[in-house]
Amino acid sequence: MLRLELSALQDRYVSVLDNDRIEEWPGLFTEDCLYVIISRENEEAGLPAPVIYCDNGRMLRDRIVALRNANIYERPAYRHSLSGLQWRQEPDGSFAMDTSYIVVNTSREGVSSIYQAGRYQDRVVRTPDGLRFKSKRCIYDTLRVQTLLAYPI
Amino acid sequence: MLRLELSALQDRYVSVLDNDRIEEWPGLFTEDCLYVIISRENEEAGLPAPVIYCDNGRMLRDRIVALRNANIYERPAYRHSLSGLQWRQEPDGSFAMDTSYIVVNTSREGVSSIYQAGRYQDRVVRTPDGLRFKSKRCIYDTLRVQTLLAYPI
Amino acid sequence: MLRLELSALQDRYVSVLDNDRIEEWPGLFTEDCLYVIISRENEEAGLPAPVIYCDNGRMLRDRIVALRNANIYERPAYRHSLSGLQWRQEPDGSFAMDTSYIVVNTSREGVSSIYQAGRYQDRVVRTPDGLRFKSKRCIYDTLRVQTLLAYPI
Repeated sequence: MLRLELSALQDRYVSVLDNDRIEEWPGLFTEDCLYVIISRENEEAGLPAPVIYCDNGRMLRDRIVALRNANIYERPAYRHSLSGLQWRQEPDGSFAMDTSYIVVNTSREGVSSIYQAGRYQDRVVRTPDGLRFKSKRCIYDTLRVQTLLAYPI
Repeated sequence: MLRLELSALQDRYVSVLDNDRIEEWPGLFTEDCLYVIISRENEEAGLPAPVIYCDNGRMLRDRIVALRNANIYERPAYRHSLSGLQWRQEPDGSFAMDTSYIVVNTSREGVSSIYQAGRYQDRVVRTPDGLRFKSKRCIYDTLRVQTLLAYPI
Repeated sequence: MLRLELSALQDRYVSVLDNDRIEEWPGLFTEDCLYVIISRENEEAGLPAPVIYCDNGRMLRDRIVALRNANIYERPAYRHSLSGLQWRQEPDGSFAMDTSYIVVNTSREGVSSIYQAGRYQDRVVRTPDGLRFKSKRCIYDTLRVQTLLAYPI
């Protein structure tokens, strides 16, 4: 059943991003969280050079406010695909979860193409409000087109 | 468990379309159903201009007969991807369900490309035969290439 | 619950391939197994002309050793998408399972594109170690770009 709960959390995460409900995005994390987007190349080389790095809830909320107000970013139209969910419980009771993702984006001109492929490396904890991300690392394979990367993946 | 049942219905739906078993497609709906394919642009603007509109089971069955007999449409080779399933029970006992989709099509020449991305906005009811779609709205992001749209998505 | 177990097996299968853990791949099969990659065209015409054909565990393990040592193949960076899982129990107690797949590959240059779409036609049996593939047929729609096909799909 835990697998189902973890899968439901991941589904909720992508639903929020795919359907322009990004105000709900910070609420899927704990307050002392880590959110990182980093290339597979840097990840494998151990280079700490993330494209996005947020290490608490306030940074997540600030990012959403900026995205909503700045108007300098094109609103993306993502559709995520998820597969291969693997998980295990860690000694501290949290859950390590790994999932492949593919993100398709549709441009303003209405053209849909693969925007990014990669994997989520997550740490999930149980809170009074349900399962939440303690950390989420988005490790992307794709090197082209990072112009929208101000947006969460 | 309901989540699993809803997910299984959605899986059966895409399996029927992906594997050329479209004769089974109308049977996944109630007799007094609604099936609509509409662009996200029109949906958000409240414009009732769907590409396909069927409001009963006979229209669904007629469409399948036409697709099988007309021979003017290229048979598509779809592969769906689903994610982000969200659901809630409505006051009338039915289930509102929302799911992101990506459809890849392979042309006669054997080239696979993204055909359409969007989301299903469904209303599901329990019948003596199991869960069935009372309505399914396919709201697509993609504006290019609608030539195959005589086919269900 | 069986649906969940079958889905978890399929998820583990794609996780192994997507995350460069191909040494674990043969262990997902029984020793007297069948692994075939074949085009939809040949499959539908009944032509026995698979791109890959392995009919026991040793052949699977040999393939992995070759892929690791030969160095003539570019290591692919696959991300699978799965959908439409359908299954039924056969008279002999095994499970027939059918699943659509889409595989996105990211090239050395960092470009992600659809590599292949198709379906898995599987036979799964229960063993002391859990569910295992007795046979897996990868029936692909896509005809373009088969250069990486030495790799399992």
